[in-house]
Amino acid sequence: MNPRVSIIMGSTSDLPVMKEAAEILNDFRIPFEINALSAHRTPDEVEAFSKSAYDRGIRVVIAGAGMAAHLAGVIASMTAVPVIAVPIKASLDGLDSLLAMVQMPPGIPVATVAINGARNAGILAVQMLATSDEELYNKLLAFKQELKSKIVKANEELKSINYDFKV
Amino acid sequence: MNPRVSIIMGSTSDLPVMKEAAEILNDFRIPFEINALSAHRTPDEVEAFSKSAYDRGIRVVIAGAGMAAHLAGVIASMTAVPVIAVPIKASLDGLDSLLAMVQMPPGIPVATVAINGARNAGILAVQMLATSDEELYNKLLAFKQELKSKIVKANEELKSINYDFKV
Amino acid sequence: MNPRVSIIMGSTSDLPVMKEAAEILNDFRIPFEINALSAHRTPDEVEAFSKSAYDRGIRVVIAGAGMAAHLAGVIASMTAVPVIAVPIKASLDGLDSLLAMVQMPPGIPVATVAINGARNAGILAVQMLATSDEELYNKLLAFKQELKSKIVKANEELKSINYDFKV
Amino acid sequence: MNPRVSIIMGSTSDLPVMKEAAEILNDFRIPFEINALSAHRTPDEVEAFSKSAYDRGIRVVIAGAGMAAHLAGVIASMTAVPVIAVPIKASLDGLDSLLAMVQMPPGIPVATVAINGARNAGILAVQMLATSDEELYNKLLAFKQELKSKIVKANEELKSINYDFKV
Amino acid sequence: MNPRVSIIMGSTSDLPVMKEAAEILNDFRIPFEINALSAHRTPDEVEAFSKSAYDRGIRVVIAGAGMAAHLAGVIASMTAVPVIAVPIKASLDGLDSLLAMVQMPPGIPVATVAINGARNAGILAVQMLATSDEELYNKLLAFKQELKSKIVKANEELKSINYDFKV
Amino acid sequence: MNPRVSIIMGSTSDLPVMKEAAEILNDFRIPFEINALSAHRTPDEVEAFSKSAYDRGIRVVIAGAGMAAHLAGVIASMTAVPVIAVPIKASLDGLDSLLAMVQMPPGIPVATVAINGARNAGILAVQMLATSDEELYNKLLAFKQELKSKIVKANEELKSINYDFKV
Amino acid sequence: MNPRVSIIMGSTSDLPVMKEAAEILNDFRIPFEINALSAHRTPDEVEAFSKSAYDRGIRVVIAGAGMAAHLAGVIASMTAVPVIAVPIKASLDGLDSLLAMVQMPPGIPVATVAINGARNAGILAVQMLATSDEELYNKLLAFKQELKSKIVKANEELKSINYDFKV
Amino acid sequence: MNPRVSIIMGSTSDLPVMKEAAEILNDFRIPFEINALSAHRTPDEVEAFSKSAYDRGIRVVIAGAGMAAHLAGVIASMTAVPVIAVPIKASLDGLDSLLAMVQMPPGIPVATVAINGARNAGILAVQMLATSDEELYNKLLAFKQELKSKIVKANEELKSINYDFKV
Repeated sequence: MNPRVSIIMGSTSDLPVMKEAAEILNDFRIPFEINALSAHRTPDEVEAFSKSAYDRGIRVVIAGAGMAAHLAGVIASMTAVPVIAVPIKASLDGLDSLLAMVQMPPGIPVATVAINGARNAGILAVQMLATSDEELYNKLLAFKQELKSKIVKANEELKSINYDFKV
Repeated sequence: MNPRVSIIMGSTSDLPVMKEAAEILNDFRIPFEINALSAHRTPDEVEAFSKSAYDRGIRVVIAGAGMAAHLAGVIASMTAVPVIAVPIKASLDGLDSLLAMVQMPPGIPVATVAINGARNAGILAVQMLATSDEELYNKLLAFKQELKSKIVKANEELKSINYDFKV
Repeated sequence: MNPRVSIIMGSTSDLPVMKEAAEILNDFRIPFEINALSAHRTPDEVEAFSKSAYDRGIRVVIAGAGMAAHLAGVIASMTAVPVIAVPIKASLDGLDSLLAMVQMPPGIPVATVAINGARNAGILAVQMLATSDEELYNKLLAFKQELKSKIVKANEELKSINYDFKV
Repeated sequence: MNPRVSIIMGSTSDLPVMKEAAEILNDFRIPFEINALSAHRTPDEVEAFSKSAYDRGIRVVIAGAGMAAHLAGVIASMTAVPVIAVPIKASLDGLDSLLAMVQMPPGIPVATVAINGARNAGILAVQMLATSDEELYNKLLAFKQELKSKIVKANEELKSINYDFKV
Repeated sequence: MNPRVSIIMGSTSDLPVMKEAAEILNDFRIPFEINALSAHRTPDEVEAFSKSAYDRGIRVVIAGAGMAAHLAGVIASMTAVPVIAVPIKASLDGLDSLLAMVQMPPGIPVATVAINGARNAGILAVQMLATSDEELYNKLLAFKQELKSKIVKANEELKSINYDFKV
Repeated sequence: MNPRVSIIMGSTSDLPVMKEAAEILNDFRIPFEINALSAHRTPDEVEAFSKSAYDRGIRVVIAGAGMAAHLAGVIASMTAVPVIAVPIKASLDGLDSLLAMVQMPPGIPVATVAINGARNAGILAVQMLATSDEELYNKLLAFKQELKSKIVKANEELKSINYDFKV
Repeated sequence: MNPRVSIIMGSTSDLPVMKEAAEILNDFRIPFEINALSAHRTPDEVEAFSKSAYDRGIRVVIAGAGMAAHLAGVIASMTAVPVIAVPIKASLDGLDSLLAMVQMPPGIPVATVAINGARNAGILAVQMLATSDEELYNKLLAFKQELKSKIVKANEELKSINYDFKV
Repeated sequence: MNPRVSIIMGSTSDLPVMKEAAEILNDFRIPFEINALSAHRTPDEVEAFSKSAYDRGIRVVIAGAGMAAHLAGVIASMTAVPVIAVPIKASLDGLDSLLAMVQMPPGIPVATVAINGARNAGILAVQMLATSDEELYNKLLAFKQELKSKIVKANEELKSINYDFKV
């Protein structure tokens, strides 16, 4: 089984956030790998990873990093595989990593999700793979249905709140 | 020829920005369509578009909007096709549309690029399609090579700058 | 008893904030309802709600949501009932939801209150209904009088602070 | 003919923005008045205005101001008529006036619209009056229909753009 | 003994911050008063206070408030006594109250200090009174000397930190 | 005639902003001086100025500077004369100079006005001097009256705007 | 042993942050000193320090301060020794001290590192000294190697995370 | 003549800003080179440059880039030569590039100067080289003297401004 998605984080301290991406991929039964690689501390490893990713079967990269978060952009500079960026909140409420990721200059995009939004990064990776996999697309539709069911059910709880003028 | 990518903008005034996405798709020979649809002014049209997109063969949506930019998120709520969000600068230097797009809550991701970054949105759409199309992937590698050539050539111009102590 | 005001929240986790709106409506004896509906996870339910609101007797909607908060704008796109937006603080100190709500483009306004300002949203809803209800208007004047009494009374406590040069 | 809506601006220099509210009210045939009153330079006039507004038949106030924009809040402190706040862009891209208006403390709400969003303030005023006026409500529905028609028509123009791979 | 400085806060909950101003005034033996008055909830009381302040002997007002903090500006609109504004941190890290205070439009200044900077507000009030009181000015010089002594003494503690290469 | 107020700017390029302070002082017939002194480029001159200011009769300093604006704080560290800070807009819309001035740490206040608010700095200086000069205080009241007259007169112009439903 | 690097902090409360710079210098066996000196409370001591630093053998200064952080700029105005600025987070998430340090006007640079980034300040000081010391440069290369080893090792831990579809 | 300082910019469009660094180096007679290299478009060239810089005699790198500016950090990850970062203003007033540069994570510092502050980058590079070159240090002292002379002379012009009460 070869991994199709690669989750990279700039530091193992990002794991509590980034594992939400792993959980989604696991639920959708997408083979994946997880590594901690730092654009700043292990540039050669990042290069080796990026340049070999496509040939190893990787079709989507999810990269999470904090502060001046260069990881996603650096990987995207060395592969044409789409890179999803997860800005990690480490300082300034995550605004620094958000801007350092999303504001990529013309030519080298990264697909940025919300601050600490690793769960959405996982879903987005599945959506990308589903562009050529109808079965996977249908699983996504079922997943959306489940999201809806949860909130519809949660809404039931609101019924139990009592006020004199609540109808 | 059916479109595979759909470019949507919240207002025709966004066209000068959004046409950069069209140019990329055209260069990569990806069939696409362009429409102006507003999440706020034409909600029914957005719904009709979103719910039929996959069945019409659309595999990636690129949505550009300004201010409280809901377009990308609204489309993403009604299709499982990946949606790329282009925050348009209309007020507050584009920070409002950036946050209104990128900060999507868990469950419904959009893939956000830079403020006014429609060109990168086009490239990202191609990257998504290339996850299942090796020929397209190789075109992307060639495109990256070209980007490099341009800056290497531009660098030559710097040779002509003269200072006594410039080596 | 038909509800005249509808309180909607994007997630039941917003209840601790949003119930302050309910308390105000209850105190003013305005029939109301509370629901959790998500612009992103239950778009069809939001549409059904929005399109039927006026005919069900709803005259004001109060919508609270966090992050890229589209709920108020999406509802406002599908009804002409005034929509009061409560930006919920979930990330970036609530600045993202504030901008995603208040910066609505021309044509579709929402009436935005402070971050987590559900209590004020409730009062504003009463003020809107009081535009055609003099008795309710007079209750609002009495309410303002009470606000004043509380701070005048609180001011008395400051009398007890002792400093040599405090007069 | 007594005015039902009062448009107040902190300075006559705000007129180019604020007249968009007047145009909406005029189109909806709502009698209105326009005045320049400054919370800081004419506090007594603001007080006289605020305390007499309801009795003069005013049911909605629209207040526009820039910088440390106190006008809307000061009026709201002295009347229970709903006050719509228009933050005017005069410095810091309008962020100062937005925050000085929208972040009202509990007890005294103002209904804030987008920076320079006077047109939406006008529409919101009509929506408030329409809570008790079905004819007016139906005019709003027609207005929404017109908004939609404009963008549908504008979308036609996009048809004329030619690319080899545009469908 | 008539008060010469008046400390006003928008809510008694601001007391833990604002009492630092009181302590400074007490230390400098300046007669002062403390009141909680809200620009929004007790506008008449604020007006009565502002218009009578000078005649009651008040020469400096210190006003602290949070969120859309209008208190200092409203007082300054009704008296020519200098008003020192203390932005209180209640939301958005205090940025909202800072901008709502410091960005006063031309004609009506307030003298703004740091977020939660009530201690500095007290010192600034003393400096204003010292413009016509040489004895008080000399006390301020002594106070500055004391500030210096404290840090010089604190610096001694740093001597005790040991590192092999610390000189 | 000895100057009582000293206007300092970090660069002569700040003169178009800072001269508004001079005009106010001139109108109020307060003897003043103007100098360009840089906290960073002429630290010794700033020190000499600050340490001699009080003895030369200076009772208020107005300091304007841009970017990382240290001028006001540096002067305030070396004199007990009150220092009014004018943040000059040179980059980041003036937010950098505003924060670099207003956020002074405990012990050394500066009295900050709005970005580019030199006119208000002049008025504030007059207010400080008027704490011990009743005649000057009365001039300030007259000045406030004039501010009011101007806006009342400007309001007349609004009368000439014609709309069918303008009352 | 004369110190070659001087660590200055605006307050002893900054020590928990600033000691990380000391630890780096100690590890690299660079003689250093630590002092608490305040630009605002001890201007004369800062001047004496700055003007004598070079002659005492100091070749790099590391200055940490919070809020309106003038310390680094003030030192840089009085010496030509390079000054590294560490913005300390004390309010506004450290954004105020960052801007008050990094936005130095032309002519007087300071070398700013991340908010609370004292560790990096220490490394940068070593890099500056290594511009003329090959042995030290080689130690830096070894240090970089160590950084890499740590993350490579940390990456091993990720191996132990188990998911069904983790490869 | 081997270059001792290397100026790198992410795009030749950055030249109007970055040439100010070149002018300073030229004035101080420091041999230097200028190149356009992009972290994102020419990663291999950036790597080759970074890994050979020290051996080619480069002792300081000055890197300027805009938007999600990774250039300085990427170079710093591959060399121990100090890297000075110049955030270029291309969007969001330069705040994105400032944060993407200055907020480097622990281990890999860059020395950040003001937005568009290339002139200061040049001066800082000279200061770094002067840590081991007394003659150069003395030139810097002379340069500071000149900065002072210019503002002292500019101050003379202020003498010519006439007001009745200007002393």
